[in-house]
Amino acid sequence: MQEYRAESYDVVVVGAGHAGIEAGLAAARLGVKTAVFTINLDWVGNLPCNPSIGGTAKGHLVREIDALGGEMGKAADECFIQSRMLNRGKGPAVHSLRAQIDRRAYAGRMKKTLEQQENLDLRQAELVDLRPKEGGWEVVTRLGAVYSAKTVILATGTFLGGRIYVGEVSYEGGPDGMFAATRLSDAMRRLGLSMRRFKTGTPARVHRGSVDLNKLEVQEGDDPVTPFSFETQRPGPNRAVCHISWTNERTKQVILENLHRSPLYSGKIEGVGPRYCPSIEDKIVRFADKERHQLFIEPCGLETEELYLQGMSSSLPEEVQLQFLRTIPGLEQVQIMRTAYAIEYDCCDPQQLDATLECKKWPGLFGAGQFNGSSGYEEAAAQGLIAGVNAARRVQGKPPFLLDRASSYIGTLIDDLVTKGCSDPYRMMTSRSEYRLVLRQDNADERLTPLGREIGLISDRRWAKFLDKQEKKAQELKRITNTILPPSEELNALLVSHETSPVVTGTRLSDLLRRPQLNYTVLEPVDRERPNLPGEIFEICEVEVKYEGYIKRQKAQIEEMRRLEGKKLPPDLDYRTITGLRLEAQEKLNKIRPRSVGQASRISGVSPADVSVLLIWLAGKGGENHGNHS
Amino acid sequence: MQEYRAESYDVVVVGAGHAGIEAGLAAARLGVKTAVFTINLDWVGNLPCNPSIGGTAKGHLVREIDALGGEMGKAADECFIQSRMLNRGKGPAVHSLRAQIDRRAYAGRMKKTLEQQENLDLRQAELVDLRPKEGGWEVVTRLGAVYSAKTVILATGTFLGGRIYVGEVSYEGGPDGMFAATRLSDAMRRLGLSMRRFKTGTPARVHRGSVDLNKLEVQEGDDPVTPFSFETQRPGPNRAVCHISWTNERTKQVILENLHRSPLYSGKIEGVGPRYCPSIEDKIVRFADKERHQLFIEPCGLETEELYLQGMSSSLPEEVQLQFLRTIPGLEQVQIMRTAYAIEYDCCDPQQLDATLECKKWPGLFGAGQFNGSSGYEEAAAQGLIAGVNAARRVQGKPPFLLDRASSYIGTLIDDLVTKGCSDPYRMMTSRSEYRLVLRQDNADERLTPLGREIGLISDRRWAKFLDKQEKKAQELKRITNTILPPSEELNALLVSHETSPVVTGTRLSDLLRRPQLNYTVLEPVDRERPNLPGEIFEICEVEVKYEGYIKRQKAQIEEMRRLEGKKLPPDLDYRTITGLRLEAQEKLNKIRPRSVGQASRISGVSPADVSVLLIWLAGKGGENHGNHS
Repeated sequence: MQEYRAESYDVVVVGAGHAGIEAGLAAARLGVKTAVFTINLDWVGNLPCNPSIGGTAKGHLVREIDALGGEMGKAADECFIQSRMLNRGKGPAVHSLRAQIDRRAYAGRMKKTLEQQENLDLRQAELVDLRPKEGGWEVVTRLGAVYSAKTVILATGTFLGGRIYVGEVSYEGGPDGMFAATRLSDAMRRLGLSMRRFKTGTPARVHRGSVDLNKLEVQEGDDPVTPFSFETQRPGPNRAVCHISWTNERTKQVILENLHRSPLYSGKIEGVGPRYCPSIEDKIVRFADKERHQLFIEPCGLETEELYLQGMSSSLPEEVQLQFLRTIPGLEQVQIMRTAYAIEYDCCDPQQLDATLECKKWPGLFGAGQFNGSSGYEEAAAQGLIAGVNAARRVQGKPPFLLDRASSYIGTLIDDLVTKGCSDPYRMMTSRSEYRLVLRQDNADERLTPLGREIGLISDRRWAKFLDKQEKKAQELKRITNTILPPSEELNALLVSHETSPVVTGTRLSDLLRRPQLNYTVLEPVDRERPNLPGEIFEICEVEVKYEGYIKRQKAQIEEMRRLEGKKLPPDLDYRTITGLRLEAQEKLNKIRPRSVGQASRISGVSPADVSVLLIWLAGKGGENHGNHS
Repeated sequence: MQEYRAESYDVVVVGAGHAGIEAGLAAARLGVKTAVFTINLDWVGNLPCNPSIGGTAKGHLVREIDALGGEMGKAADECFIQSRMLNRGKGPAVHSLRAQIDRRAYAGRMKKTLEQQENLDLRQAELVDLRPKEGGWEVVTRLGAVYSAKTVILATGTFLGGRIYVGEVSYEGGPDGMFAATRLSDAMRRLGLSMRRFKTGTPARVHRGSVDLNKLEVQEGDDPVTPFSFETQRPGPNRAVCHISWTNERTKQVILENLHRSPLYSGKIEGVGPRYCPSIEDKIVRFADKERHQLFIEPCGLETEELYLQGMSSSLPEEVQLQFLRTIPGLEQVQIMRTAYAIEYDCCDPQQLDATLECKKWPGLFGAGQFNGSSGYEEAAAQGLIAGVNAARRVQGKPPFLLDRASSYIGTLIDDLVTKGCSDPYRMMTSRSEYRLVLRQDNADERLTPLGREIGLISDRRWAKFLDKQEKKAQELKRITNTILPPSEELNALLVSHETSPVVTGTRLSDLLRRPQLNYTVLEPVDRERPNLPGEIFEICEVEVKYEGYIKRQKAQIEEMRRLEGKKLPPDLDYRTITGLRLEAQEKLNKIRPRSVGQASRISGVSPADVSVLLIWLAGKGGENHGNHS
């Protein structure tokens, strides 16, 4: 292949999936010259698995991405067909928004956004090589174009070394019938990156006309719909319903009888699959006692008859898929339009990355999304945003942008990946955060928009709107604390009717709101001075008042965590020189090279005693900051 | 690969491009159980080259497809962004509608139509084998499903053995980054089909923001827009403009300097390209004297910044493409989003097919579109419709549906392909029809809707509407023939002002309309009894009156042609047994096996003397019909 010199960029993003999109947009919006390469320009922002965005903990990520100025939430608000706030019956920490998306509309919307972004060139090309050069990188396309880049962000998703598996059949391929990127992995290996093989899978898409939906439980969306983006004024209505069905003993039987034909169980697939998003055959085997498994039957878009069978991902042979699906109520006559498959792909060990998502060994080389070992669109987008911001800041000579665990799920996700690594595709869950009462989806803007503003991704208009909301919230909190309701007959009747004790002296509105039986809606008749505010402000005030004690406790923990996080460790420190550290700790610390004692304390193999040694060592050094930024 | 037995169909269509869509819809609408297989469910009805439909002679085809109950015209009416009636300044025979299409919208629209069609299953699968079996065929997918089919329609487009070429680089691939169908060609060869290699190409897609459109000539659409479909009531307005630019001496120089790097000129591509749709390097070489070549800069859709460079298809290396494009006014800073490429693919020699598009050697096996050696979406769709109708009729035991040359461009296209064959991708042109004054786009419904009704593709509602239009037209023709205008001062002033001689006696309106200077619009002030009719009726009456003499002459020729066409030749006749036929004629006739003396007369190598021999031989046989249907 004859090479030729093509353009130079500040940031080259490899891939235009959810990670690549946010990476490219963030970098370009921060003013650096950016290129986004995709193997197929027709499916920018493809949703190759479930056409849905959000869900428990993932909804938090989308809100956080939005609060920092990212795109995913806005696009989801424009292209959703059904939206629900999950877990409303549970505590506010786990409320999570989840929307079914029109897949075709979403891909079109995202492509257009990238095309129209200033400082951003969107190009169709397969990259086949990545070479370090003086002051940056060279990326080489299949057609021989050699682009120079000060920084490169790898957001290769399942394309990198992609291989499809269906029963006994396997072949090279990316998701949704697109080409795989087959040669770029070699470049990674030449760079000495530690690579690994993960796998994921997707269920069959079936024809709506072949499903007896009348038999099935209907799942309606919310009314009114809550938007993902803090900027979306009026989300449209729901335009579709989903349905629920269940597997049964016969389903189980068909699967167990054919398990030997699964490439997973026959040992053909070496890649490790996502623990928290298993295939149906995995579920049947791992939860052998479970009588039935739920599946959701969800539309892939408004303009298509394709339905998605959430919960039924599989790599069993096509005939077996058809056989087990047809045991399920409603699916007795089901017709498969696209067969379920597993896809195996190359990704890196994220412990090679810094919390900026930059490769410690290769400055200027960033990773995001599945390349870093995560699973999920939202996890990918979150990392894309952080990688994009940091690539741009590196080019601009600005200090890195870091989010700690207490700031966000994004910070938690990245800290987990780079500190603990992952042995299977990493999925975000609320249980992964020790601060989840503080890291709620409703306050993502409060937590992160000031940071988004600081880095330059929040417009003046949005910032003014944000400040106004914060001001209104503060006033409302003050009002409910200062408003004292006298013990009237009306008030006590209301209290008793909600099974809570009457009051005998004047009582603060905030103290009433704290009672589990009461809330803003219940108290409306007696709260005569209540101002006319958006519902989201009442909601957040209620949560903050109700959970004040818990929140205070978590904030104290955060202070303590941040103290350790503030104890910076030099990036070039050789931990073998620190006496008192156990050998395992020395090795792990030399591998991970944590930014701080806080991060060091979370490395598996580093004990509290090792942490004390580090603190003593640092104190001895006068706690100097060795150039790391916080 | 483990095979398993899947469903049985009456008609299996291989491919969901323009041929496959019409084939599948026609068969399903005629009531037979149909499956359409596509390698990628996301791009049903893809427009991999220019996102435009129609054009000279091709617009005729779309109207004819529509008149027979096909889908292309309706979809184009829904998804066009700019529409123009070409050649308005020329005679009515060459008026042709051409519309720029929103590519993404069109693909979505066509997928939905197929999904919602009764009797039709749309499936994503690559077919890897095709085997004859008792009473029909077996098609085998890559995943091992074996479908039975009474008939199979091959509409494989550029996917069959697809190979992409850009300069020195080449690789297996279908259009637009999709997989090629690599194994099905072997099955064709096993069947003993004579296969060949054709190639086509497409220009680069460039970013609108990198083109200086202000410098360029604007091309507006029509106002009002004429729809393709006789069923479309109110087509929307134009929503985009196109632009025109020109190559120059420098463009030529860059191309000539780099010609050795073209896979075409270096001999890498063995496939034969379309003579009438050459690459820019072909044009530069073949028309060496021409100073400049025109190019049209056209949007690929409303929701994208991609622009199509009509006239600039190329397989030169990417860097050369960029270099020559940047010599063109308006494109000095152009940024390529998708590189131009040539694609080589397998197709069959259409002389192996009957006019039903069925393989003479393999009953029940049909071909359509590029598989048959044609080029163009409209040519493909036309053949798809005919193949679909005939496959269904075969299953139903009905006589074949044939269109002769005098009926339509579709008939001409098919007769050309199966009688004369093609040595390069066949493109429809008005000059290919000897009856083009009769085969106008404005009367496609009159010519073909009665046939569409007969075969069962025209609904009662549409048929009633058609009859009403024909009645109104007949009445209007009668009215203008019977209306005699007295030689008034007003009339003569009008005539003189349009530079035609005044009248001295009462004159028929039709005689006035016959004058070249006059038309319906001009005569409006003096035509006081004119009824309120749709413009299309006035248009067709005007054409019929103005060209009455020529039309009469062509109709006489058609009678004569049809007489020979009525002289059926037995399909199993061994022409070596007919004494008096020249050896070449015997060989050609034995190869093509024409249905009639008419078709025989058009075979190259069959002389008028040979035709006489056939007529004499037939007369001797008493002109018996050997079972061929007309």
